[in-house]
Amino acid sequence: MNYGEKSLVKHAEWQGKIETVVRVPVDNREALSLAYTPGVAAPCMAIHDDVEKSFTLTRRWNTVPVITDGTAVLGLGDIGPEAGMPVMEGKCALFKAYGGVDAFPLCLATKDTEEIIRTIKILAGSFGGINLEDISAPRCFEIERRLKEELDIPVFHDDQHGTAIVTAAALINSLKLVGKKMNDVRVVINGAGAAGIAIGRFLLSFGVKEVIMCGRYGIICEGDSRINPAQAEIAKITNLGHRTGSLSDAMTGADVFIGVSVANCVTKEMVKAMAKDAIVFACANPVPEISRADALDAGAAVVGTGSSEYPNQINNVLVFPGLFRGALDVRATTVNYEMMKAASAGIASCVSDKELNGEYILPYAYDKRAHESVAKAVAAAAIASGVAKKK
Amino acid sequence: MNYGEKSLVKHAEWQGKIETVVRVPVDNREALSLAYTPGVAAPCMAIHDDVEKSFTLTRRWNTVPVITDGTAVLGLGDIGPEAGMPVMEGKCALFKAYGGVDAFPLCLATKDTEEIIRTIKILAGSFGGINLEDISAPRCFEIERRLKEELDIPVFHDDQHGTAIVTAAALINSLKLVGKKMNDVRVVINGAGAAGIAIGRFLLSFGVKEVIMCGRYGIICEGDSRINPAQAEIAKITNLGHRTGSLSDAMTGADVFIGVSVANCVTKEMVKAMAKDAIVFACANPVPEISRADALDAGAAVVGTGSSEYPNQINNVLVFPGLFRGALDVRATTVNYEMMKAASAGIASCVSDKELNGEYILPYAYDKRAHESVAKAVAAAAIASGVAKKK
Repeated sequence: MNYGEKSLVKHAEWQGKIETVVRVPVDNREALSLAYTPGVAAPCMAIHDDVEKSFTLTRRWNTVPVITDGTAVLGLGDIGPEAGMPVMEGKCALFKAYGGVDAFPLCLATKDTEEIIRTIKILAGSFGGINLEDISAPRCFEIERRLKEELDIPVFHDDQHGTAIVTAAALINSLKLVGKKMNDVRVVINGAGAAGIAIGRFLLSFGVKEVIMCGRYGIICEGDSRINPAQAEIAKITNLGHRTGSLSDAMTGADVFIGVSVANCVTKEMVKAMAKDAIVFACANPVPEISRADALDAGAAVVGTGSSEYPNQINNVLVFPGLFRGALDVRATTVNYEMMKAASAGIASCVSDKELNGEYILPYAYDKRAHESVAKAVAAAAIASGVAKKK
Repeated sequence: MNYGEKSLVKHAEWQGKIETVVRVPVDNREALSLAYTPGVAAPCMAIHDDVEKSFTLTRRWNTVPVITDGTAVLGLGDIGPEAGMPVMEGKCALFKAYGGVDAFPLCLATKDTEEIIRTIKILAGSFGGINLEDISAPRCFEIERRLKEELDIPVFHDDQHGTAIVTAAALINSLKLVGKKMNDVRVVINGAGAAGIAIGRFLLSFGVKEVIMCGRYGIICEGDSRINPAQAEIAKITNLGHRTGSLSDAMTGADVFIGVSVANCVTKEMVKAMAKDAIVFACANPVPEISRADALDAGAAVVGTGSSEYPNQINNVLVFPGLFRGALDVRATTVNYEMMKAASAGIASCVSDKELNGEYILPYAYDKRAHESVAKAVAAAAIASGVAKKK
């Protein structure tokens, strides 16, 4: 049996990957009177008087929904809210196992941007933060932007920023390995959807010298009438030399290739045309832009993929549990770039200079040290950047 | 310290009365590949092909939100969504402890009927049933009615039907004790809000001879211009003799008084004017319509209250965990009167004829037998009434 067949059997056995448990006694009259009526009226009124107390008198401080509309689940596309549930439940399990976060899956039966925003705003008082998941572009941009503006708890679209954070961590260590610096390298990103655009914008904040985004029409250039509004935005701050041409043109002489696109769109020749000590992150799932073997064969110095079957898996499982753990611990009111950059550094720092090699640029997803490192770094960055309500 | 003060201290210690736990291994590469990517794509697609599989491949089959808008929390009124959370969390703890149900608290930041309906419909695909809680009348009627019509999972407004079910259970055993029959008694219900109206309607389904509802203007009579639409509805099937007058007039000669109203509105004289072997359920919280001592002193044969500090507490904690357990076990598509009546009978049956006495008409809230009895009875009634998708 392959993973899919085995997983189906397991899911039928499990009948759910998470469940709730009771943390307090409720098995006698006295206990009921404290956890429930009549005693419970007192914490209710304490919160009524000061809504911030909902973070100390209830589980709100540790509770995050994993919210999807089921439109961009894995590589499966728009499969609907119920069908997205196994992924969301799995994510909730990882949130708890790696971050100690009580996450809860919510699959929304609407694809309307305004309705998704409104629904999440209506629910936000029950949660300490919001994890958006597998919502297709371009709606995900507007949904996240508006929720960040209008809510005072962390809002995080994992497909954008989780991917950006772990990719940056992989790049930090890969550059160390090949002896290059962020502000010396040209990075080509293929795939100008939610993940690609988020990666591009985020890498610029690290001082990368030049980012070239490529989409279905090749290099994305300001003024091109074929690009969408989100691409037009990123075009203003990338490709400042106004290059035009194909992905192949973009990759010629580039130091780094990052693929969040489709299977087999990169050839060995294209990798051969890159600069010396090229870094190739071919993250399309399940089949990468170019196989690890071919990329190495074409001279790449470091290769990462999205798959757990090869070295250097670039997976945002390394990000979200620790990021929310850190944000929740200090009652952060948002997730900002300072926190995100700290998360990247936190991940990268888990691989020591001694351990670092071409087959080990990132800690494993199930390495608890990595999640603790992210949490600590994110909490410190939230405090330092002035968005923590608790210290 | 009183219960409120103690409860506040406990809530600050607890920092949440429920949490999520992980039910599957996720601590190595193989485990991650089954519970999460890439294996998880298979259960996703299985649900995409047959949405009913969301009840077997995820935790949906056992998951119920406790949803409030915070408008009618305990006797505290409209205290807002965040402030309602301690009650909702407590309820979720009881759902799990007594019914094995994975309940999750959701406090909505809207009071708009249409928006509440729309929000819950958008969320419904994540849940096996919906428990509405502490939503004020008359909005709760429309919200519940519409959701029952439009969803194919059980929808239950506990303040209406939980109260009705446990009150009917208390009445079944009280009548047994005094040797009267449902179709011989006149029942006066004081309080014509959500709970009172639901109790009136439900008792009629047991064949009660006459129900008289009383509200703030006294006896509710068809055609009275002062009553609201929900009261006008119930007026069509109660008080068929078109009595008018005060609560005191209504109680004269009545066999049963049920109070879901306000403190101290019933005098000893009013109880004295009731029929022989009067039954008095004075359920206003925290102070009843008449104290247990006064009601007994005035000749009542059986007295119940809403308080855990006296015998015969009439509390819907006896209902909701078992009712949802039974409904979920057979994948019921709704909660109908057959299931509700079975729940009442299931509760009542937990007190044997030998045990039954004036100080013990109902099992205790923490008596696990009671919840099991309700679950079994409700599941059987769902199957018998043709609303179970699973047997």
